[in-house]
Amino acid sequence: MEVKEARQYVIDRLEYAFKPRSVAVIGASRNETKVGFKVIQGLRRSGYEGIIYPVNLKAETVAGLEAFKNINDIPDEVDLAFVALPAVAVFDALKDCVKKGVKIAVVSSSGFGEVGNKDLQTEIAMYCRENELPLIGPNLVGIGTPYHDFNCGFVPYLPNKGPVALISQSGSNLLAALGSSQLEHFGISMFVGLGNKADVDFCEMIKYADQEPHTKSIAVYIEALDSPEAFKKACLECEKPITVIKVGASKIGVKAAFAHTASENRGHSNEEYDKLFEESGVMRENTWMEFLDTSLALGNCPPLRGDNVVMITNGGGAGLLACDHFERLGYPLKELKDISPELRTNIRKYMPPFGSPLNPIDISGTATSDMYGGALRTAYRDENVDGIMISVCPTAVTDVEAITDTVIAIHKQYKNLGKPFIMECQGGHECREAIMKLRDHGIPAYSTMEQAVNAMVALRRYSRIMYHKEELLDQAAKEAENNK
Amino acid sequence: MEVKEARQYVIDRLEYAFKPRSVAVIGASRNETKVGFKVIQGLRRSGYEGIIYPVNLKAETVAGLEAFKNINDIPDEVDLAFVALPAVAVFDALKDCVKKGVKIAVVSSSGFGEVGNKDLQTEIAMYCRENELPLIGPNLVGIGTPYHDFNCGFVPYLPNKGPVALISQSGSNLLAALGSSQLEHFGISMFVGLGNKADVDFCEMIKYADQEPHTKSIAVYIEALDSPEAFKKACLECEKPITVIKVGASKIGVKAAFAHTASENRGHSNEEYDKLFEESGVMRENTWMEFLDTSLALGNCPPLRGDNVVMITNGGGAGLLACDHFERLGYPLKELKDISPELRTNIRKYMPPFGSPLNPIDISGTATSDMYGGALRTAYRDENVDGIMISVCPTAVTDVEAITDTVIAIHKQYKNLGKPFIMECQGGHECREAIMKLRDHGIPAYSTMEQAVNAMVALRRYSRIMYHKEELLDQAAKEAENNK
Repeated sequence: MEVKEARQYVIDRLEYAFKPRSVAVIGASRNETKVGFKVIQGLRRSGYEGIIYPVNLKAETVAGLEAFKNINDIPDEVDLAFVALPAVAVFDALKDCVKKGVKIAVVSSSGFGEVGNKDLQTEIAMYCRENELPLIGPNLVGIGTPYHDFNCGFVPYLPNKGPVALISQSGSNLLAALGSSQLEHFGISMFVGLGNKADVDFCEMIKYADQEPHTKSIAVYIEALDSPEAFKKACLECEKPITVIKVGASKIGVKAAFAHTASENRGHSNEEYDKLFEESGVMRENTWMEFLDTSLALGNCPPLRGDNVVMITNGGGAGLLACDHFERLGYPLKELKDISPELRTNIRKYMPPFGSPLNPIDISGTATSDMYGGALRTAYRDENVDGIMISVCPTAVTDVEAITDTVIAIHKQYKNLGKPFIMECQGGHECREAIMKLRDHGIPAYSTMEQAVNAMVALRRYSRIMYHKEELLDQAAKEAENNK
Repeated sequence: MEVKEARQYVIDRLEYAFKPRSVAVIGASRNETKVGFKVIQGLRRSGYEGIIYPVNLKAETVAGLEAFKNINDIPDEVDLAFVALPAVAVFDALKDCVKKGVKIAVVSSSGFGEVGNKDLQTEIAMYCRENELPLIGPNLVGIGTPYHDFNCGFVPYLPNKGPVALISQSGSNLLAALGSSQLEHFGISMFVGLGNKADVDFCEMIKYADQEPHTKSIAVYIEALDSPEAFKKACLECEKPITVIKVGASKIGVKAAFAHTASENRGHSNEEYDKLFEESGVMRENTWMEFLDTSLALGNCPPLRGDNVVMITNGGGAGLLACDHFERLGYPLKELKDISPELRTNIRKYMPPFGSPLNPIDISGTATSDMYGGALRTAYRDENVDGIMISVCPTAVTDVEAITDTVIAIHKQYKNLGKPFIMECQGGHECREAIMKLRDHGIPAYSTMEQAVNAMVALRRYSRIMYHKEELLDQAAKEAENNK
């Protein structure tokens, strides 16, 4: 349901949605296949240290915990109420929540707007707003943060710790990303599946993520915006980079999005969304992989302040893939002689005579970790260099592990210079391990060149957005004035 | 060096490059860091069962094998001579090979065209042509096939067995792909790094791959074509699908490609290559990932004969990503009612009432392996369905392993119907394992939706090429006539 702008009481209460001291599960179940059981199981598996109160009309205990017939029977304060009841029973439960004075409610139940039951959804949302009880959902898959060991819902994974806040309207895509987080060491600070977003909207989640200390970038999956103006304002006021993916752009997707999360895209063209995102200062990505890849880079790296990117590689072919992809994206690599003639001379120390100091800088298939280290240090130290990419190709003489360790040590030493540094390493198991280790040390690393290039270009795009932030804010203020 | 068209003696001899009974390593070395040692080590590690003859002027034995001062001292026939000598010594070695009557020579040595030493390269190529000794390389990283346990060069990986022939001008990208083959269960039938391609050219490799029985699709990485007409003819005559990636398209890439494999791209625009590839009936991909992903699909699946693709998913968000990406590529999904009203009715049996039989067919987050199996079988059996995609999202109740096994069994039963079937499964470790298992069973499976959609669309693009093959052949014949 529409909001004019992000509500402060909602933003304040979101702290209890991600870091509650206690959770009441209304609709707690002893049946292991039910959400009312899964949520308790998930909380325990994630190592949640707060108090869990099962609420169940009949059972004395659920999952070994004392159960309560009504949330109002719980003798202590409840921060978060998780509602896992059939749709028809949700309204009464929310009334109980208001009576109890819970800080925030999360409703996982489906059977609302997405199946045409919009009236009931609006009714409960209105009620919650009147009573200032923020409601997340309904039709929500889960919410949590690895920094609070908190996984609340039916998400089988608690993600790896890291810088990206993931705000997803879709549950399935959230699940996929959280699975990838574990598998690919993609670090996440907090996550939520917004579902039908009857009450709490994107704008409030963005505002909360902006103040959440572990979050360095915000990734938002959107099926439709109910409140584009509130979204824009929240984004423009946000000091962290925001990446969005907006689906339901296709003809058939409009129908599918409605069936999925009751998302209303009729009358809003893809181009209008493009314009909105541009005016909001957020970066739109088209594919899921680009969406995640660029969020990771934005969460780990400073913006790329200029076009002087140098690329160091031991593989000529890898370098060529990079050249082409940079140019395809409209950010062509510059020759090293045009970036820094001095660097062109100095970097020769770290390559054999048949290496090529063009850019990509081909330090040859025989490159050792010392050569990589020397070249990287030289590039970091050169004032004309804005960003650095390293590509490692596993030839028979390449010690991928030693190169990885060298690079991590040098990155640690120089990261405060504010130059983005991105790695690419495609190959077998040793490359996969390298990528995981690099990511664990805050270096965005990818297994294909186009991913690495996309990531570096995203850092440049974000830098340009930052430079234009004032203009975007002025423009938004004028529009707001005109609309009055 | 240019060839007018693929030479039959070269194609015939290529059998000895991939499946030799014996290999002489000229420049075999006792120094473990040298190519002359690595190649023998690689052959042994791969389990090569042919005979290895080290050739070394001074050593009595190399790597425990009897060494010969000259290839002509070897008492038996030699199929393949692998030359790992400094550039200056290569010509003499090739003369010895001619004298010995070896079937084919592979030269790994660098120091030729790529460093400006084009004259020597031309000289040896001319010599080899005069004497009908096919030469692969120089500046080559390796050649081999897992079906002959043959890994000859300095490639640290023998790839997994499978349908894709990988012909790469770049060594580093070949290495990356072979590493991925092991890591991602990407099946390869044969591989070669062509390097400077002084003599043997793409056209001959393509012709050989076309007749190689394990090969079902051909993936070609190109930095520049010396013989575009011969390439076109070979491609048009090839009965297997061909995917190409052509780099060096960017401004800086032209220079980098020359420094890498002496590739001459000046005067040949990217658009001219686009035209050539279209006229050749091959599919050009832009990114490395698309190049590999589509090759895998083309190697495992029949072409997609019509636009009636149905997608079955347990995740609405995943379905939406698919809708958008299909439409973005110009191949929009059709609604199920327009594909088969009967299927729309029948498939309802395999979803809960809140599922959505639109297309994507959302069988809901609670979908079991039986529901997936029933839906898949129903879609296979429907005559109006041309291709099927399945997406599995790991909700808390999803048994990814059971779904995988069900799907593999049904695919086995129905694969002879000639309908492409592609899977997507993004999430944690269970999804990764599912992808590997599916690939091992000949089902192209991917971890993101855009990859799966790209793959399905590639099968449609290939189908259209097949329908136009006659026209392309006629056109090429007319051009050839005009050029006379």
